[in-house]
Amino acid sequence: MKALVYHGPGRITVETRPMPQLQDAGDAIVRLTKTTICGTDLHIIKGDVPSCTSGRILGHEGVGVIHEVANGVSTLKPGDRVLISCISSCRQCHYCRRGMYSHCQTGGWILGNRIDGTQAEYVRIPHAQTSLYRLPEGHDEAALVMLSDILPTGFECGVLNGKVEPGSTVAIVGSGPIGLAALLTAQFYSPAQIIMIDLDANRLECAKRFGATACVDSRVSDPRESVMELTDGVGVDCAIEAVGVPATFELCQQLVAPGGTIANVGVHGAPASLFLDKLWDRNVTITTRLVDTVSTPMLLKTVCAGRVDPGRLITHRFAFEDVLEAYETFSQASSTQTLKVLIEM
Amino acid sequence: MKALVYHGPGRITVETRPMPQLQDAGDAIVRLTKTTICGTDLHIIKGDVPSCTSGRILGHEGVGVIHEVANGVSTLKPGDRVLISCISSCRQCHYCRRGMYSHCQTGGWILGNRIDGTQAEYVRIPHAQTSLYRLPEGHDEAALVMLSDILPTGFECGVLNGKVEPGSTVAIVGSGPIGLAALLTAQFYSPAQIIMIDLDANRLECAKRFGATACVDSRVSDPRESVMELTDGVGVDCAIEAVGVPATFELCQQLVAPGGTIANVGVHGAPASLFLDKLWDRNVTITTRLVDTVSTPMLLKTVCAGRVDPGRLITHRFAFEDVLEAYETFSQASSTQTLKVLIEM
Repeated sequence: MKALVYHGPGRITVETRPMPQLQDAGDAIVRLTKTTICGTDLHIIKGDVPSCTSGRILGHEGVGVIHEVANGVSTLKPGDRVLISCISSCRQCHYCRRGMYSHCQTGGWILGNRIDGTQAEYVRIPHAQTSLYRLPEGHDEAALVMLSDILPTGFECGVLNGKVEPGSTVAIVGSGPIGLAALLTAQFYSPAQIIMIDLDANRLECAKRFGATACVDSRVSDPRESVMELTDGVGVDCAIEAVGVPATFELCQQLVAPGGTIANVGVHGAPASLFLDKLWDRNVTITTRLVDTVSTPMLLKTVCAGRVDPGRLITHRFAFEDVLEAYETFSQASSTQTLKVLIEM
Repeated sequence: MKALVYHGPGRITVETRPMPQLQDAGDAIVRLTKTTICGTDLHIIKGDVPSCTSGRILGHEGVGVIHEVANGVSTLKPGDRVLISCISSCRQCHYCRRGMYSHCQTGGWILGNRIDGTQAEYVRIPHAQTSLYRLPEGHDEAALVMLSDILPTGFECGVLNGKVEPGSTVAIVGSGPIGLAALLTAQFYSPAQIIMIDLDANRLECAKRFGATACVDSRVSDPRESVMELTDGVGVDCAIEAVGVPATFELCQQLVAPGGTIANVGVHGAPASLFLDKLWDRNVTITTRLVDTVSTPMLLKTVCAGRVDPGRLITHRFAFEDVLEAYETFSQASSTQTLKVLIEM
């Protein structure tokens, strides 16, 4: 089969690789129909993710068709159309029993990281019964690929952790795909304001179309001043960090109102300053989270019911033979005005 | 009347001052019977609290007897024995309606800070009906002084924010009065372990007597290693920071397990490092809080029912005429083996 393979920092190639084989009783082999590229894949290629070693097939998102199941799998059968979750989970270990599937002791984020991933014609999925979701008929598969990672990540790490609620004020720092996923799903809860902050005018225009009540271009105006003006000098109830660098996390600390929450979504490679001298008495909460995908069934329902269309995040489509071009386009997202790329097998 | 007055960094004196007068319809004048000194008073004397200016009578804790009430006060009358809350609250503003009395727009922590405080024979209490608590008969008033600030602070900022629950593992960094108040009140919820960490052997001995399941002297052993040994290498569900310096907050980040909470209680004068590169995917929560005293009625019941005895925190007693000696003793807490001092009028 064809697969996109990581060969150490800066090197990816398309190769012919052997078909994946069933290894454990809970495994399934899925034939991919659609996949995508995540910002995390770019981190891997930069060499930022030491757990992902040379020779690994990348990718942790996709939809496909069950090709084969092992003898422990009774709820899925060949031919079933499925969504692949970026998180594999046994549902039996200490962490899974608490709903923290992201920390499953024999799973978590392993696809395209510790085991071969979804940017290939076929993929082996461990804990298949609890890590795959059968897809309803008659819905746009392209949009559903966004449920593998990006929509639950924006929703769980940003919206749920940020305690977005009716009437609340929200600032989302970063209007990339993850920030926009938070923007889309924050609207489930009817907040009074959702203020998007970025330094890319195109992404802010998308945010406006996607439902932001205000957009702040931080190259043009001071984001702290703008947010204070928009919130009567109080700050926001919820600041969502969707970039992953110290400056944006530190900005969130300036935006949050007393009693508010900073929900970190970004993947960070360095420590940030925490201004405890200013925050110790402000009754704030700061959260971090690797997506648990506990909301995937609920998000599937919202998509099927037409409450949210994550397909709007897809700006570019490629055939799998052009996956290297897809990477090139996605890695230059600003100049190519890319949000998410869809890769079709 | 006699009062302890702050005259800028390093200077406090006992002086004769005019009796406080009723100013607003919600005021009461309370004749103090007992008061105490808080670590925050020492911060003021160091010059760390710019809102507290020269000429201020210090103190935000105490019990006493109602001397006089203004015409808007109907639920309290002269002669009533009352507990003074360190937080004054109107119960009507935006923050009070959310239960965030600490941020009351005409109150909060003002006593002994923005207005004259309790280290005096008499004190004016604004919002008296909602900031004083009538004391039940027949209970040790000395112990009840600990309900003005320290017990609700340890409980709300540490135990409640830290989500201590039956079977959970707790580490408290700092075994001073606030850390010990958190230790005492954490036991309401039957955690499996409460590990106290300090570098003062005497305070750790107190902690052991007060119910700690383990004590770690950080001069003798590495606290991170010790906590990992005590928790099967996982870390604690709840790390309570009860010191207020960057090093102890940073230690908490090394102690917390995936899915756990760091509850900051300490008053911080400087930023700390937040190791987001390690924590971004660990599903942790960090909280800060100035005590709201929402738990004061409940804590009063626990003390009256004998479920907790905060009087154990009192190590030294002084008459008010010796208040300067009380400050001297309290400011050298380690060499004098002091936890809380009681000052009797």
